[in-house]
Parts: sequence; structure tokens; C-alpha cells
Amino acid sequence: MKIYDLSPEISEDMAVYKNKSDKKPKLTVTRTLKEGANESKLDIYVHTGSHVDAPYHVLENGKTIEKISLDKFMGKAVVLDFTKAEGSITKKNFLKKIFFLTNHIVLLKTKNKNEKTFNFEFTYLEKSGAEYLASKRIKAVGIDSLGIERNQPAHETHKIFARNGIPIFEGLNLSKVKQGRYFFYGLPLKIKKGDGSPIRAVLIL
Amino acid sequence: MKIYDLSPEISEDMAVYKNKSDKKPKLTVTRTLKEGANESKLDIYVHTGSHVDAPYHVLENGKTIEKISLDKFMGKAVVLDFTKAEGSITKKNFLKKIFFLTNHIVLLKTKNKNEKTFNFEFTYLEKSGAEYLASKRIKAVGIDSLGIERNQPAHETHKIFARNGIPIFEGLNLSKVKQGRYFFYGLPLKIKKGDGSPIRAVLIL
Repeated sequence: MKIYDLSPEISEDMAVYKNKSDKKPKLTVTRTLKEGANESKLDIYVHTGSHVDAPYHVLENGKTIEKISLDKFMGKAVVLDFTKAEGSITKKNFLKKIFFLTNHIVLLKTKNKNEKTFNFEFTYLEKSGAEYLASKRIKAVGIDSLGIERNQPAHETHKIFARNGIPIFEGLNLSKVKQGRYFFYGLPLKIKKGDGSPIRAVLIL
Repeated sequence: MKIYDLSPEISEDMAVYKNKSDKKPKLTVTRTLKEGANESKLDIYVHTGSHVDAPYHVLENGKTIEKISLDKFMGKAVVLDFTKAEGSITKKNFLKKIFFLTNHIVLLKTKNKNEKTFNFEFTYLEKSGAEYLASKRIKAVGIDSLGIERNQPAHETHKIFARNGIPIFEGLNLSKVKQGRYFFYGLPLKIKKGDGSPIRAVLIL
């Protein structure tokens, strides 16, 4: 069994969306060993690093993270290699792939790197691609950038998935993973009324 | 495949260690749908609810959470029923059990309930029990209270596991799980220099 760790380290130096400083996580030491034990508190924007978006992130009546069946965050996964796609991934890109996608967690490997700073020109999933995946009734979707879309002011890609109850994983590091079939685990914290959650994500071969 | 969710909801109302108000988590809304998306920030003491302790929690030179092999947080698990144990679980309690424990994640089901307030008299694992489990070279240990020990001022139970590189899961809800064999997943967030991490934990049958 080989385990691929897909999550970047959570630290004040990590890349955050649009490099906004208020989105940087912070670990504060609250107690030390001299006082009994090393203890700390984490302040984290829930869409930091590897994370998952709940439908409520973009839909007022969408499910919040603690209400979603755990089955959605684990199971058979397919990594699709789109490292040659420029700008965005559209329906056309998927038509060239031969994998069975229904009820799978579909992970999009692009040329996005797990960079130290945010890349404003990241490869994203265009709405026709999102519609295609939703029509295939996939279980969940994931990508290796900190967002699954840009340049779509109405957030169509997010909304297509949200309306279909499909969780969106963002901030996955897929650089060491090849196209193919795996098992995925990326369970969210059970945050009451959460619009998402940071996660530790793995692929298992 | 049956999935048992072992994690209580993370909210300001949840039970925290010794009921200390500074250990309550807080979810702050940072943006709403009218501004583009529902977004929030979570402030959480890392030993809240279902969580895992890294050796660094009690040992200055112990590993921090992001350095521990992911294999330690997933795999074959055994739930042992100690609901009849009073006060503490000792080596003697384990000698009556027939399960093979080496390289397993061993979860201790006690009469601790997933109460809304902290129970100061929770059933704990006494040091002779910790020594026994370490001698069996278990992979990890877990319990259904917010701590694995009390009444041991030198924290011997924590230290025995820490010295042996055995992660400690605390705050698991085992009330719906019977004694037996399962698969466990409880991956920590990859917190740089973390002494522990909140987790979403599951058992799979």
C-alpha cells in the first residue's frame, strides 16, 4: 500500500488565495512543557491549503459541511492528467479521457504547482467541464490549485457542483501522482454550520 | 461498507477539557453570499473534540504532528470494550482480551459518554495499561474521553506512548461501535510544529 500525501504544510508562510494576509493561518502557543504540556491554538480560514467546499459556500440553502454524508469524502478516485491544458479545462478535454467517472472522486491534475505564492493565472475548470462532470454523476471533484475557478464572475463552476451536492476539493498537491485509479480520503472536520473545512487528503494505491 | 462517524460536532457549545472557556472553538463569519461567498474562520485549540496528540505534546524532543508517517493514523483497528471498568483501565483488563494488537490502532471503549459537559471522573488508561500496549507495539491508541489519563501528575501514560512514537487519539465517540475489528481513519491536519490536531475520525466495517 502506497500513501500519497496531497496536503501542503499549514503555516504562516504557505500560499493563500490571492496572497491576502488575512487568509494566513496562525498557530499560537498557549502552554509549554514547563507548565505541563506543549499546547497551541490554530486560527484558520476554512478554505486554506487542502480543503473542501460545502454547497453552502456558494448557495444560501446549500448543505453545510457537517451535514454531508461521509461517503462523499472517501472512496474510489480517478486522477485525470490535464497538465497540457492551457488556461482552463473544458468539456472537450474530458471527451478525450476513457475513465469511468460515475460515483468516483475525480481529481484534476493541471500544470498548477504547489507554489509558495498564489498563482493568479491558475488553470481552472470552465463551466462546460463542470456541467460534463455533474452529468456523469461524479461523487466529488478536486483540483491542484487553491480555487477550482476564476474568470467566471457568477461562480458557475462552484454552483453547478453545489446544486448537485458534489463537494469540491481544492489545494491538493497532485504533482507526485500519475493519471489513474486510486482510493481517496479527505474527511472534513465536523464544523457546525461550516462552509468548508481544511483537510488532510491522501490517495492510496 | 458501513462508516461510523466518531467525531462530535465542533461548536461553541461542545464539551471541552475541564470546561475551560478559553478552550472553546469559535467560527467567525468573514464573508457572506451577498459579498460573493459564505466564508469563515475557525479558531480552535488543537486538542478539541476528536483529536490526536503528537509526542511533542509531552516530550520536548518528540515529533511534531506534521512529521509523523501517515500510516500511523490509518489502518487495521481493534475496539476493546471496557465499559465495565471503573475509574481506570490497567494491564489486568487487557489480559482478559483475546485480540491481536501488534501494529493495530487500539481503541478503548469505556463508559465515558460523549457528554455535553466535561466529566472530571472519566475512565482513563492507567500507566500499567499503557506499558502493556506499548510492549505489544501497537500502532496508535484511542479513547472515548477528552483525555487518556488523569490522576497521574507526571503524565506517565502520555509519555509512555510518546516515547514509543505512538499517537494518542482522544475525544472519539465509540458509543455506537461494538468490540471487534475495523478499519480506522483519523488523519491530522499537516500543522507545522503542531503538538496535535483536531481530526475527523471514522471506523469502517
